[in-house]
Amino acid sequence: MYEAAFKVLEVLETREGPVPGETLSNTLGISRSAVWKHIKELINMGYEITASHREGYRLKKSSNRLLPYEVHKKLKTTFMGMQMRYFESTSSTIWVGKQMAREQDPQTLHGMVIIAEQQTGGIGRLGRAWVSPRGGIWATVILKPNIPIDRVFMITMAGAIAIARALRKEYDLGALIKWPNDIYIGDSKVAGLLLELSAEADRIHYALLGVGVDVNVSPNDLSAVPNSVTSISLEVGHDVDRPVLLARILKEFESRYLLLEAGEYESIVREWKSLSCTLEHRVRINTLKTSFEGEAIDIDEYGALLIRKDNGKIERVIAGDCIQQ
Amino acid sequence: MYEAAFKVLEVLETREGPVPGETLSNTLGISRSAVWKHIKELINMGYEITASHREGYRLKKSSNRLLPYEVHKKLKTTFMGMQMRYFESTSSTIWVGKQMAREQDPQTLHGMVIIAEQQTGGIGRLGRAWVSPRGGIWATVILKPNIPIDRVFMITMAGAIAIARALRKEYDLGALIKWPNDIYIGDSKVAGLLLELSAEADRIHYALLGVGVDVNVSPNDLSAVPNSVTSISLEVGHDVDRPVLLARILKEFESRYLLLEAGEYESIVREWKSLSCTLEHRVRINTLKTSFEGEAIDIDEYGALLIRKDNGKIERVIAGDCIQQ
Repeated sequence: MYEAAFKVLEVLETREGPVPGETLSNTLGISRSAVWKHIKELINMGYEITASHREGYRLKKSSNRLLPYEVHKKLKTTFMGMQMRYFESTSSTIWVGKQMAREQDPQTLHGMVIIAEQQTGGIGRLGRAWVSPRGGIWATVILKPNIPIDRVFMITMAGAIAIARALRKEYDLGALIKWPNDIYIGDSKVAGLLLELSAEADRIHYALLGVGVDVNVSPNDLSAVPNSVTSISLEVGHDVDRPVLLARILKEFESRYLLLEAGEYESIVREWKSLSCTLEHRVRINTLKTSFEGEAIDIDEYGALLIRKDNGKIERVIAGDCIQQ
Repeated sequence: MYEAAFKVLEVLETREGPVPGETLSNTLGISRSAVWKHIKELINMGYEITASHREGYRLKKSSNRLLPYEVHKKLKTTFMGMQMRYFESTSSTIWVGKQMAREQDPQTLHGMVIIAEQQTGGIGRLGRAWVSPRGGIWATVILKPNIPIDRVFMITMAGAIAIARALRKEYDLGALIKWPNDIYIGDSKVAGLLLELSAEADRIHYALLGVGVDVNVSPNDLSAVPNSVTSISLEVGHDVDRPVLLARILKEFESRYLLLEAGEYESIVREWKSLSCTLEHRVRINTLKTSFEGEAIDIDEYGALLIRKDNGKIERVIAGDCIQQ
């Protein structure tokens, strides 16, 4: 979609000054009216382009949307994000990913990234609502993992590491991972992850890693969130380039994901631990079955948290709510 | 479907001799032509019913199909199999179950059993073909498990125990469990199981336990199967009552499943071990990633097999092919 429009954009991007319509028409081998149609498409996608009869078209400002074209320009991965789908607005990218993985061979979708400018029904763990206004990164990666089923939740660990590393490298923010799958800056949540799985014991049909990052989002837009939240723009004091950030997250995620596929579980666990704000803290754990307090002492090689209860007994939890005290 | 026909059948079953059409018509408050329509439906379902103008209708012989009506008569469960769907022929019951679980709230389907007289595209582990001719039990149970995600493959253990116990109790056969999910009599496979899963870390959306049992199946009908196979009819020397067997399997499965939901994992592991023909044997394991030999020494509390390799190292495998030597 819009490939021809992006060809026009490419020409505008490579020229310093304005480009006459005739030049665009000749360079791309399309009519003057086709050029004008694509210029209008680009303007609709948020690019600021001026048109003058005398000088021609001039790109004044890039779009501030999270367009695949812009992400691809920054992307340095080998397979992650090579395919992307973009939605102005959708219910949730993880729901879209599930539909795609059911209808197509997941192998052909491996590394596909689904992006939405906003989600009308964003979901978090346990079906909880995930507030997803414009300005964030609301994306889902479709994977066909070739890893043993009991390692599958290490994909979430790899994703959490990727987000924390990206925030550190791009903005020098002290992002840390709160078990099981949130990213915090100080006492406030800035991002979260959700892994969806379709599998039998011997093989994973597909996994979907949904990520939500509060990027250029004002606290007012997140007021429906019950916990303390922050955003990157709030932390750094200005809006940041979302395509750059998403490309960085995908790059960091790809390198950790490939470690998983190579069976290098220990190095994922080690990096996760080095970024954890949960370990060595007193926590209350609420699971499906039980609720208890203790000290989070370690994470095991499957991603389960180990808690030392007050009676000295060690509990192992693979999933649950963790309230740090 | 066919509720009215089964009401007619109930009357025929409770009377010793033949029942005049007029009696059926009066008892059930339906017309004589409706009675005849339902008699024809029952005959189509495999019931042998004679009709004489003088005497009326007489049930000569029950259907030899695996009809929900017949299974329900024998069923002693509290929720398992309370809902059933029957297919003369379908691609695979696990595929049907997946469609149902996607389209409806899985909670309302908890315990639903899908039965097919034959499967045209029966599937085993890793998408392998599962030969499913008439005479077997090809069924899938839909579950909405309230158990932690890392315990989910214990559902397969519970199902394997149920089948082995049912074959022992009903026919005194020395059925044993071969890891991960087959039932053997001597050196020949008689049944298998497959668990399909849709989940996130914190909750299981649904699980489907597919079971295939070679019941009244001749070896010729299984000749496409590469391994050594047997059937119950071959072992006991005559065809057996499939509704009785399925009702027994569901009863045995329900009781173990409820242990799982109650967190009584240890008792499932203990019973599984007591029925295992894999433990204490030398095995070759082929997984996604690796292949090795060793002695199967134990199964852990998540259903993973522990193998002592020749170098003394213990390997833990949650899934794979196991060739016993």
